[in-house]
Parts: sequence; structure tokens; C-alpha cells
Amino acid sequence: MTSHYRVNYHLRAHKRDTLIEFVKGMLLTPFVLHSLPAPQDPASRPSSSRSASSTPESVQAANDERFTEIFASIEALIDEHRELALKGTHEFSRLSKLVPGVGPFFTPLPLERAFRHINQRNRISARKHVPPSFNDIRRILNMAQVMAIAPSLELVTFDGDMTLYADGQNFEDDSALTALLVGLLRRRINVAIVTAAGYGSDAPRYEMRLSGLLRGFAAAALSPEEAARFYVLGGECNFLFRCRPDYHLEYLDDAQYASSALRAWTEDQVRALLDVAEAELADCVRRMAINARVLRKPRAVGLVPHEQLTREQLDECALSSQIALLKYQGSPDSQPGNAPIPFCAFNGGNDCWVDIGNKLIGVRILQEMIGSPPGATLHVGDQFLSTGNDIATRSACCTCWIINPQETQSILTELDTFLAAPQP
Amino acid sequence: MTSHYRVNYHLRAHKRDTLIEFVKGMLLTPFVLHSLPAPQDPASRPSSSRSASSTPESVQAANDERFTEIFASIEALIDEHRELALKGTHEFSRLSKLVPGVGPFFTPLPLERAFRHINQRNRISARKHVPPSFNDIRRILNMAQVMAIAPSLELVTFDGDMTLYADGQNFEDDSALTALLVGLLRRRINVAIVTAAGYGSDAPRYEMRLSGLLRGFAAAALSPEEAARFYVLGGECNFLFRCRPDYHLEYLDDAQYASSALRAWTEDQVRALLDVAEAELADCVRRMAINARVLRKPRAVGLVPHEQLTREQLDECALSSQIALLKYQGSPDSQPGNAPIPFCAFNGGNDCWVDIGNKLIGVRILQEMIGSPPGATLHVGDQFLSTGNDIATRSACCTCWIINPQETQSILTELDTFLAAPQP
Amino acid sequence: MTSHYRVNYHLRAHKRDTLIEFVKGMLLTPFVLHSLPAPQDPASRPSSSRSASSTPESVQAANDERFTEIFASIEALIDEHRELALKGTHEFSRLSKLVPGVGPFFTPLPLERAFRHINQRNRISARKHVPPSFNDIRRILNMAQVMAIAPSLELVTFDGDMTLYADGQNFEDDSALTALLVGLLRRRINVAIVTAAGYGSDAPRYEMRLSGLLRGFAAAALSPEEAARFYVLGGECNFLFRCRPDYHLEYLDDAQYASSALRAWTEDQVRALLDVAEAELADCVRRMAINARVLRKPRAVGLVPHEQLTREQLDECALSSQIALLKYQGSPDSQPGNAPIPFCAFNGGNDCWVDIGNKLIGVRILQEMIGSPPGATLHVGDQFLSTGNDIATRSACCTCWIINPQETQSILTELDTFLAAPQP
Amino acid sequence: MTSHYRVNYHLRAHKRDTLIEFVKGMLLTPFVLHSLPAPQDPASRPSSSRSASSTPESVQAANDERFTEIFASIEALIDEHRELALKGTHEFSRLSKLVPGVGPFFTPLPLERAFRHINQRNRISARKHVPPSFNDIRRILNMAQVMAIAPSLELVTFDGDMTLYADGQNFEDDSALTALLVGLLRRRINVAIVTAAGYGSDAPRYEMRLSGLLRGFAAAALSPEEAARFYVLGGECNFLFRCRPDYHLEYLDDAQYASSALRAWTEDQVRALLDVAEAELADCVRRMAINARVLRKPRAVGLVPHEQLTREQLDECALSSQIALLKYQGSPDSQPGNAPIPFCAFNGGNDCWVDIGNKLIGVRILQEMIGSPPGATLHVGDQFLSTGNDIATRSACCTCWIINPQETQSILTELDTFLAAPQP
Repeated sequence: MTSHYRVNYHLRAHKRDTLIEFVKGMLLTPFVLHSLPAPQDPASRPSSSRSASSTPESVQAANDERFTEIFASIEALIDEHRELALKGTHEFSRLSKLVPGVGPFFTPLPLERAFRHINQRNRISARKHVPPSFNDIRRILNMAQVMAIAPSLELVTFDGDMTLYADGQNFEDDSALTALLVGLLRRRINVAIVTAAGYGSDAPRYEMRLSGLLRGFAAAALSPEEAARFYVLGGECNFLFRCRPDYHLEYLDDAQYASSALRAWTEDQVRALLDVAEAELADCVRRMAINARVLRKPRAVGLVPHEQLTREQLDECALSSQIALLKYQGSPDSQPGNAPIPFCAFNGGNDCWVDIGNKLIGVRILQEMIGSPPGATLHVGDQFLSTGNDIATRSACCTCWIINPQETQSILTELDTFLAAPQP
Repeated sequence: MTSHYRVNYHLRAHKRDTLIEFVKGMLLTPFVLHSLPAPQDPASRPSSSRSASSTPESVQAANDERFTEIFASIEALIDEHRELALKGTHEFSRLSKLVPGVGPFFTPLPLERAFRHINQRNRISARKHVPPSFNDIRRILNMAQVMAIAPSLELVTFDGDMTLYADGQNFEDDSALTALLVGLLRRRINVAIVTAAGYGSDAPRYEMRLSGLLRGFAAAALSPEEAARFYVLGGECNFLFRCRPDYHLEYLDDAQYASSALRAWTEDQVRALLDVAEAELADCVRRMAINARVLRKPRAVGLVPHEQLTREQLDECALSSQIALLKYQGSPDSQPGNAPIPFCAFNGGNDCWVDIGNKLIGVRILQEMIGSPPGATLHVGDQFLSTGNDIATRSACCTCWIINPQETQSILTELDTFLAAPQP
Repeated sequence: MTSHYRVNYHLRAHKRDTLIEFVKGMLLTPFVLHSLPAPQDPASRPSSSRSASSTPESVQAANDERFTEIFASIEALIDEHRELALKGTHEFSRLSKLVPGVGPFFTPLPLERAFRHINQRNRISARKHVPPSFNDIRRILNMAQVMAIAPSLELVTFDGDMTLYADGQNFEDDSALTALLVGLLRRRINVAIVTAAGYGSDAPRYEMRLSGLLRGFAAAALSPEEAARFYVLGGECNFLFRCRPDYHLEYLDDAQYASSALRAWTEDQVRALLDVAEAELADCVRRMAINARVLRKPRAVGLVPHEQLTREQLDECALSSQIALLKYQGSPDSQPGNAPIPFCAFNGGNDCWVDIGNKLIGVRILQEMIGSPPGATLHVGDQFLSTGNDIATRSACCTCWIINPQETQSILTELDTFLAAPQP
Repeated sequence: MTSHYRVNYHLRAHKRDTLIEFVKGMLLTPFVLHSLPAPQDPASRPSSSRSASSTPESVQAANDERFTEIFASIEALIDEHRELALKGTHEFSRLSKLVPGVGPFFTPLPLERAFRHINQRNRISARKHVPPSFNDIRRILNMAQVMAIAPSLELVTFDGDMTLYADGQNFEDDSALTALLVGLLRRRINVAIVTAAGYGSDAPRYEMRLSGLLRGFAAAALSPEEAARFYVLGGECNFLFRCRPDYHLEYLDDAQYASSALRAWTEDQVRALLDVAEAELADCVRRMAINARVLRKPRAVGLVPHEQLTREQLDECALSSQIALLKYQGSPDSQPGNAPIPFCAFNGGNDCWVDIGNKLIGVRILQEMIGSPPGATLHVGDQFLSTGNDIATRSACCTCWIINPQETQSILTELDTFLAAPQP
């Protein structure tokens, strides 16, 4: 029956992260064997003399060590994977066997240190009834990534909605994130917002969305050099802006940067691709009797519902479009990121969009402009499932997967500590 | 390795609903075999002559029927389970074998009809990439329950927070729910809010939380008889109020209703039980280094954190308390609902509480007052996981598991239709 | 989808042993994280300084310790389970939560010592590609059981076919088992063969099956006292024989031993029960169009096929009969062993039999005659799945699950060592 | 935790067949929902009027149809997969998504017809307690393959041990297989035995193993043309013999057939590869403390134990060698069959061998000599797990997976029927 699990796994792949699930599984043994309540009366267990003198503290410390050892072991698996990747044979790594299709790691991940750090505060290994969860592991991976990248960080890119502000809202004046972003810019780290929101070259519309932040720049009296390290890239990768000394956004047209060549597609190709996407979305509307219209834009096509759709309906639209475009481009094994014409078909929460280009291209454009290699670039976003539009960045840079602006704030606060105090 | 799945299953039981998971599993076969894209070129498949003349519509209709047949089969399993339950041998039912520990069903569940109804609007069987989900099945079960209970409905009880209003908020003036609750009262159906919120006999504090609703009663000019069908039961089951003709709440002390005998516990017993719970919560605070205080009330003890805790931390506190109290009461196989002194240890979202008494007692008190049997009583709430405080009602009445006030509204709107148009 | 796993699990329960599966699962973490090939070039992994000086031997020793610790932890779980069982609250044990329905343990199980012993020879923890298997764990459990029971052993009972000789064959003259059984008798340990084979009180037929062994007794010149410690119990528990000084078997009729009262069923009850079983087997023949006849005996009814049936067909017959008889006796939660009239419905390899009485009764009769408590009695057999006839003994004594006579020989050879050299 | 299932799945891949597991999973839904006992008292279930008039026969017929429909659906998945394979895009097939890595199908598989045929005799869909098993599905796939290939069959190749005769034994005089093989040769179908057994060009040794068969040829007075259609290929693919008119085997040296070019490896390459294999097997001996010697032959190296090893130990040796040779040849994604120098590392039951060349090459040599395309060639063997030596043939021809000579006889008897009576 095991293949049933695989079928099931495959069918729900759009809701899973394989590395996180793997780590969760590995922690099950110490959780099961050691985290449950100890027998009340140790005197009655003469056979296990080892625990005769054990105190609750020593028992707990031993369990902390078991968890820690597992993270150290997974850290070593990642080291080996990185080593083999340098030789081009990462398929032979132990990690590839255990987590087929696991992506590249642009830095080591100090998981042992990250676990100790988080466990000190969050005591995951002290729980007796609730095993390590997806979110526990996600936060540990984020922490390890931030620890690893801090010494060499040059560029941080952010998703917009749900990462810096609530969905569909604007960056607010009193956001605690402003000071943190200002801090990054002052430390000579470039900052960019890479968002699906596409308003063409219309700077004021982007400024309106980011008004709180830009006013924060003014209040902080950022120098022109500092301000110039702030970018906005709209339409995933299509419309690039840079912050001027007066804290307004300035559109950079393609002629101004060589890396725009990453977007080497013709209008004919775009039209043909969007035709396929539009037809597929129209078929979704018909097939699922969805009350929505299909909206065509120059570099995108979207399904905009007249009523709240379920997550399942929007995921179905995103996955249908993805598969139709991959089939159309004739690359069965490819992902949206590396198809001949990169695209992004994603569940936008209340709508579904197919964009020409994606954040992988977006991050690369910024990396080339700034000269930041993958191991010095960090993307922070909330859409890392296969129906999200942040996942494409994983091929180009390090990432942190947050789930709301509060977590962005936490991560940046931690990052600030590591930037301030150089690592041992 | 299969037992690993069981271990894993057990460890995450506080996040699962076994019946829903079972139904999901059963739908996997038609989803896998029939929901994926049909071959492009049927002419090239001479072997399967059956599909030579098949149109997309007929293919879809056939698939709808496969889903429908599965729901009809599960409906039959529930019928058999109910039949054997009448004889006291429900452990022999096919459903008991497939879903060990499945609870009682106080009405039949017309799952086939409910699926057709929902699928017409939501086209679950038309999806090709996203299989039937937990939420899909939850909504179908809710619909079937509402269909089944409508003809005989006498009492609807509601959880408060997240069911009628946002967490920690008050019932707002413009809530669409007001008209729906008024409609129930006018149809001679009793309505009660059964909430953890415990303010003793302090009617004004409850009135403040419900101000929007009570003003709605006034605006609708409910008759005294109609108003008197509205109850509020605070502290799970401890403080009972009834609506007066002037739309204010009137406290009913224990002497006024016989069914208060359901709360037959002494102050000594309560104190001893709360001592155990308090010690366990204090141990959680120490063990997990949680920044929180433990708050003792007359009939409850709670862990109130000074900072946002994770869901995992709060679940751990709730499960630890649950198990400690069950062990203390010496009833290994029992559930919080049927322990000698019923209690409720639950994750309150931002805190964790152990209450003496629970909503099972709460619903029973109301059922006895009103004379409503289990099959004529419906509880609507959002906390049906094992760390929630609505799940205890499942032993006493029919239930609808909603996840936000919008779903409560949908369910009541559907209910209104079934109440208005007598069933075939 | 998790419940699907449970459904699947339940459906295949007749092919599983839950404790063994649990142990397998627990060993997965060290196997996955530590058993795979180490990176070739440790110099390139500066981050994990711990392994800088590690040799293959020290790496392997560390892994041996991880496996050992897991067995020690499971040993502690069993200790706690036994402790709570003494108080009657074994349902509260950690092991009961992890392996629901786990049976009683009549001795501690020194799993740590047993693992070290077997691993020294069999190097399970040195494998890099093949994880610990069902058979690995089964052998470790057998070893631990033999280690634990040796100092107090008073009675060893054996299944016949596949345990002492090949299926349907006789005990051969040159069997290495003869010397081992003689050794047990000389050490004042009682030995019994408890077999489904039912020839009534016809001693010569049993003697023919066991001719090799009885000749071996003669060749060894067993004293009358030694010979008298050897018993044969046919028809599961119905026909008892004892070895005479002349190495012939003597039938003991019921009047000769009080414990025959364990078989307190009337002819009417037997007839009615066999009627139900016969009807069910006849239904299996009809339903599955099996080419077989249903054979009625005084205390048994069997399905004897005219051609080789598949394992699946025979399991279906055994399970159908089991469930029909449990339903008939009205005890939904009961097992064949503790139904009002104990029975045994089992897959005999090439046929399927329903016997009145079972080996649980058989072992108890012998225990009472000899005065051997559960913790001093060991049953060795090959049929411990739910469609086998050895599993019933688990409620009455310690057990070893072997899969062929060679394993019986191994186990007895080990046992001999432990009997010879008193334990530390 | 889902990835745990994947890890587990991967770890046990050497014991699984993904297609068979997939089919098993798909049948679970009708088994669960429909195969269990019907409620006793249909009158009490008024809601399901559909079954009011249902008889046991009609209920069973409906269930047969559900099983049949599932097989028809899987048949259609295979049709689509074959269609896309013709275009080189089989990775896009529905089946590839559901059973990643599924191999090629050289004929359609009439699964619906095969299921009906087998179910008529074996009544799989009538079982209520034992779900469809691995062996059930394996037999249905075999039947479908035999049905499909019969009209165009030109070459049947057989494994030797366990397929035509018991392990290590000779082809016996009274084997029922003789008449069946004679029948194939008379129908102008070529027959070959492709075996690991390697005795160089020593015809008499092969004749001794096959003496019963060759005498059978004589007794049947096969014509020279008929006899000449019988081949033996030893050492997987290294030593080719043909049957002479006098029923003796004649060695064909490489010069006599062009297709020997398939074995285009030099002595130096062979030596280097066997050095790697020998080192790895020596490491297994050391690491697992196995009591065995490593035996070097001209085109093979083997581990020959001095005592019975467990299956786990032998699998570990086979998998270790496989991986070492794939790494050595630098082809991470390749399989033993398509590595630069094909090889075969397999668990031989009581030993472990690494052979240069494999049965894929063996079958291709015969196909080229005879002019038999993949869709007209059938290989019958018992070693189709990843540690077996028959699995490599799957890339070159159709296959039947049998588990003992009795099944070979059954399959050939069925084949004879289909050959005799042309298909509809």
C-alpha cells in the first residue's frame, strides 16, 4: 500500500515542503522515546540503573542533546550535499536520496546552533505531548539561514503583501519594520521589494503602497547613498524603481541596466503564452462554474472572482495554468522558473494570476545590478508552496519563509543582532 | 514501518478529525483515476471503445456519480452504525472498524444529497489537481447535518468567539447574524450562546459582549415569548442567563432549574481538581520557560502569557492539563467530558484554560430545560479539535464545525431555507 | 489523509505485529542519519569539528550506541508498562499510547542486552542500505525473551508443524532438536507439544508423527521422571498425553486432571458454535467459488480445498469465521481467546480450521498441572499473526515467534547457554 | 510527517514494486466501502431505497463492476502513457505523475479483461476481510501481459533457478514444464534460458542442469528446426548455446553472431570494475563481520558465505555493490542496466554476485539474432526487485513476474490457450 502514500504525497505536494517534513520525521524518535512523562517511581525500575541518579534537569538536558545531535547530523548532510554540488554530482548526496529533488544551499546551515538558540527560548525539546511541528522547523531553518548569511549579506529582497504589510494593505507609518529596513540600508546592505503588484512604470502608485516606509526614510534622514540602495521591482521582475534622494521612486527603464536582458522575450511569445493561460483559466471558470472574470493585462492574465473562492479552487486554477504552460513550452521536467519563457502562476489569496517573468528573474536582475552572489542574497517571503510566487527565488538566493509581518520583524531583529556582533 | 504511521497519527491526534480524514481517503481513488486531464486524442485509443463517444460533459457527469456513490456508501455505513448503536453493539459496525472511536450520530446524515448540493455550487468533483480537502469534507458534513436536523430542530447553541464574532470582540451592530438568529427565535427555535467567557452572575458584562445582538432584538421588536427563547450560558456551563422582554439578560440561579444538578460537584472537589491543574500549568511554565502567569479563578485556572505563544506551546499546556486531570481522576479511558468531575482544558488561542464543567454539561442543562433531545439540538462552534472546548458537545447533540463567523452565517442561511421549505 | 493510513493499517492487521512495527519505526532515525556512507573528504567540512578526528571504527561505535540507546528506551517503556499493569492501569502507560492494544509482558525484556548480543554477530547497525527489518526485530525480541525467562523457566510448549518439523511431516530421526529437547527435560524443565492436529485419544497416531523424537528419548535413555515431563496436547487443548517410561504416549482422560475444567463447554454449545462456523465456511466456499469441501469433526470444522488456495483466500476464510463466531457470541471487543467459548479460527497453510478451544486453554491446562506461572512458561511457535493459532498463547505465557525449525534450533541453543551459565 | 513516508518508502524501495503498490491503493476504496458485510436488516434503512430490492448476487455484481472499472481506468492510464511515450513525452503522462519512474510498456495491458478472467476463478472482489494483495495484482498483470503478447509472440526467455526448477536443482525429468516448452517450440516460438549460472563455454555442465528438459526434447522427437529454436545464455549474457538436432547444446562463440557487439567491453575495463566490486564486497564482509569469502571469476565477483546469511545481509551486499559501481562509473541517475559498462549486482538467495553484463544485454542479443522486437519478446523470471537479476530485462521486453515453477507452469498453460484460440 506504500505507493498509496506516494500518490497521496504527490497529490498534496502543493501543500508540503519536503525538507521540513524530513526534519520533522527525524525528530520523532527522541520525541516519542524521551519526551513523555517519566515513570513516577524510579526506584521500582531496578533494571535501568543508569537513570537511578537522574534528576528532571539531567533527563531534560539529555533530551536536548538528542535533538541537538539530530540537527547536527542534518547539518552534516547539507554540508555533504553542498560539497557534491560543487562537483556537479549532488544527485549522489545522502540528502538527495532522502529528500529527492531538494534544492541548492548557497550557504551552510548552522542548524545545531540555530536549534540551540531557538530551543533556549522556545523549549521545543521540553514538550511532552506536542511533537516538533512544521512551524517549529521552519523557524529553525530561518534562524540558521540568517545566522549563516549575516557576515556576507549584501542584498535583502522582500515580498510585499503578508511579508511587509497585511494583504492588500499599504505599508503603515507606524510599522516597526521601517527602523529595521533603515538599519539594513545604513549597514550598506541593499534592500528591494519584489512584488507581484504590477502598475507598469507608474511610480506614484507604488509610492502610495509604500508611503509609510518612504516617510520613514525621510524621518530617518537617509543619505542619498543610503536611499539609493532601496529598490522596488513590480510585476515580479518587470518594472524596476530606485529610491531618489528626495525619497521618491524613480523608474529605471530597460536601457539603464544590462541585466534586463534576463527578460529576453518578445511580444509575440508573451502574447502566445498568455493566450494559453487565458484559455486555461477560462476553462477553469467553466469547469468549476466559478463566478469570476478573466482579466488580461500586458504581461499577465488573472482570474478575478466576484465572490470569495476557496483555497482549493484557487490552487486548482494556479496548478492548471502551471501545467498547461509547461506542456505548451514542451518541457516536462521543467519548473515554472526554468521554462523557456519564465512565468509564474500563483494563488494570490483572493485571485489567481499568471505573470510573465517571475521573482527568480527579479532577484537575478537585482543581483547583477548590485553584484551580489546567491550566498550574499536573502529573499524573505510568505509564498513558498508550489502555488506561491516566492518559491522561484530558491534557485537564485537564500530564503526565509515567514508567515506574517510579525515574523519578518522577528527575523530582521535577529539579523540585526548577528550583523552587529560578528560571529565567532 | 506501518506502526510508525500509527505513532505519528496518535501524536498528531490533537490536530485531526478521524471521520473527515476517512472520507478524504475514500475519495482519493476517483480523484486519481478520473479527475486528471483526459488524453488529447481519443482516436488513438481504440482499445477503450467505451469512451469513443464520450463528451467532456458526460465524462464529468460520470465522475460526479462516482463521488456521489462514495458519499452514498458512507451514508449507508452511518445508517448501519446507528442501527447497531440502538442495540448497543456499535463496536461491531463497519464504521467502527474503519474509524475506531467514531462518535455517536443523533440523526442520519444525508451525505449524498449534501454532496450534490455543495458540488453544484463548488464543483469539487471537477477539480483535476487539488483533491478533496479537509475543509471540503467538513462543509459537506455540516450541510448534511443541517439538512437532517431542520425538520425537528428545537435548540441551536453557539460558541461565542470566532463563531458569532471575531476573537475577543463584541457582537457588532451590523452583523448579518442578527437577522438570522431573530429568524430562528421567531420559528420557535431556542437559541443559546454557550461560551467559556466567565463573568459570574454579572449580566451587564455579558450584555456588553452581545450588545449588537440585543439591540437587534429590540429593533426587531421580538415578542416576550420570542425573547425568552434566547439564553446565554457562561463559564462553559456555570452561569445561566435568559433574555427578558426588555432585551436585558436575567441571571437564573441554580435554584431555578432542576438540571443544574448536572453540576453536582462540591467546592472541595473543585479546589482539589484546580490544584492539580494549577500545578500542571505551573510545571508547563517552568518546563517550557514560558513567560506567563497562572491565574486562579473560582471555577477555572488559566495560563495567561505576557507575550504571544505559539500554537504548539498552548496545545502542550492544554494536553498536559488534560492528561494530568484524567490521571488524577483515575479514569484512563475516559475523556474530559465523562470524567467523574467534568472539565475542559483547552487552547484558547492566546491562552490556555482549565474550566470546571464543560459545554457537554452546558448543552445538557439547556436540553433539559427546553426538553430538546440530542437529535433536535445543534451546536455550532469552531473548536472541535481535542484541545478545543466545543468538542465535548459531540456526546450530547448534533454539531456543525465552522471556522469563522462567515461560515456561521452561511450555515444559518442554508438552515433557513430548509426550515422554510419542508423537506421532500 | 492520515486516516487512510489507519484504514489501511486496520485492513492489513492480520499481517502485522504492532510492537515490532513500532520498534522498526523508532530505529529509522539513527539508520537514516548515521548509517549511510560518510562524506569522502572530512577535511572539507570544517564546521563539524567533532568528526575531524573520527575513524570508521569510532563512527560505527557511536552508531551502535544510538541503536542500543533506543532499545534501552523501549526496555524502559516496557518496565513502566509492567509497573502500571500491576496497579491495573496499564492503559495509562506510555507504551499503551504508542502501541494501542499492546499485550501483557510476563517478564521484563532485556532488549539492550539482547540487541548487543545479536548485533555482535549480525551487525544490524553496520548496514548502510537495508534498515532494521521485521525479522531483525523479531529475533531481538526472541533473544530478550529467552534471556529473561532462562533463570526461572519451568515449562516450554511448542507448536508442531513448521516449529519442530516441516509442514505435514513427522519429527525426523536425525533432527538436531532431539538433543535440545532431551537437554531441557534433563534440566527438570517440562516440555509439551501443543498442536492443532487432532486425532482424539489415538496415541499411536501422535506417536507416529513424533516417532523420531520418541526414539531419541529411548536412545538417550531418559529416566522415567525425565520422560514424564514430556506432554503432547492435541486438538489445541482437547487431547492430553504424557510420556511413559517406555517412551510411549499415554492418554490422560479428563478425570485425571482438574484443569480440564478449563474446557467447560457442553456438547450443545459446541454443536451450535460449529454450526455457525460451518455455515460461514460454506458461505466462503460459495461466495469465493472455492473448490473445497467443508469437513465437520467432533470439535472442529474445516475447509479442505481440492486445489491449492492462495494465502488471501485462506485468510479470508479464517477472518470470516472469526468474526462470525465473535458476533454470534455477542462480544464485540473480545478476541477468540476470551470469548465465552474459546475457539480458534486459523489459516492452516493449505486449509482453514475452526477448532473449539485453543492454545491459550492448552497452555493453561499444562501450567496448572505443572504449577508453572506465566513468567516461567515459554511457548514457541510460528503462527502469531491474527489468523494463526499460536497467538492466543500470548495471554497466558511468554512467547518466541520463530519461522522455521532452524530458528527453533537456534533459540533452544541460545537458551541452553543461558541455562548453563547463570546470569549476572 | 509525510516526508517520513517518502524516506521510509525510499529505504524499502528494494522490496517494492511501485506499479503494483499503486494498483493496490486504488482498489482500497471499493474494498472498504463495498466488500464488508451488508447490514442484516435492510428494511431498517429506508433512506437508501436503491438497495431495497438488492440481492446478494446483485450487490456482488455491482462490486465486481467497481473493481473492473478501476482496472479499466488503469488500462486507460497505460494507453495514454504509451501514446505519449511514442512522442517522447511520457514524463507528461498521468501515470508518470502517479507512479514516478514507471517503466515502458511494450504492449497495451488488457487489465480489465485480465481481471475478469482471474476474478472469475479467484473471486478477489468477493472477499470481505482481505483486501487485494501484492500477489493478486502481480498475477493480474501477468495475465494481462500474456493476453496481450500472445498474438505476436516470437521469443520467450526464462530465468533458470526458481523459474524452471527449484533453487540450485536441475530440470527434472518429470517436469510438467517440458511439454509446455515443447509446445512453444512447435508453434515456431523461440525459447531461451537466460541464467546467471556461468560455466564458460562448458556445454556439458549446462546440459547436466537441463538434462530433464533435453531428454524431453528427445522423447518428443523435436525436429532439427524446432530444436534449433532453443537457446541457453549463461553468465547473464556471456555464453551462448544453441540446441543441436541431437539435443545437445552447442556453444556459439562471439564470431558467430553480430549482436555480441552489445558486450563491447575490454578486459581492462572489466578488471577495473571487478576490482571496485571486490573491494566493496570485502568491505561488507569486514563491516558486517560476515563469515564468507569473496570469490573472483573472469567476469564476476561473488560473496560466498560459510553459513546461512539473512536476506537483509545479502541485500545490503547487493545494494552496496550497486551503488559503488554506479558511483565509480560516474552516472548518478543511471541504473545498473544503462551504466557505461552494464553489470548486475544481485542477491542470489544464499550468496551475492556482481556480474559483468546483465540480462538486459542477454535478452537484446537474442532479440537481435532472432529478429524479435520488444513487444514480441517475453521474459519470465522471479527476481524483479531492485536486488534481483531479472529486473534489467524490463527495459528490453515484456515480462512476467512469477514466484515459483508452479506459477511458470500456470502462466504457460494460460499462454497456450491464448495461442491456440486466436483472440477476439
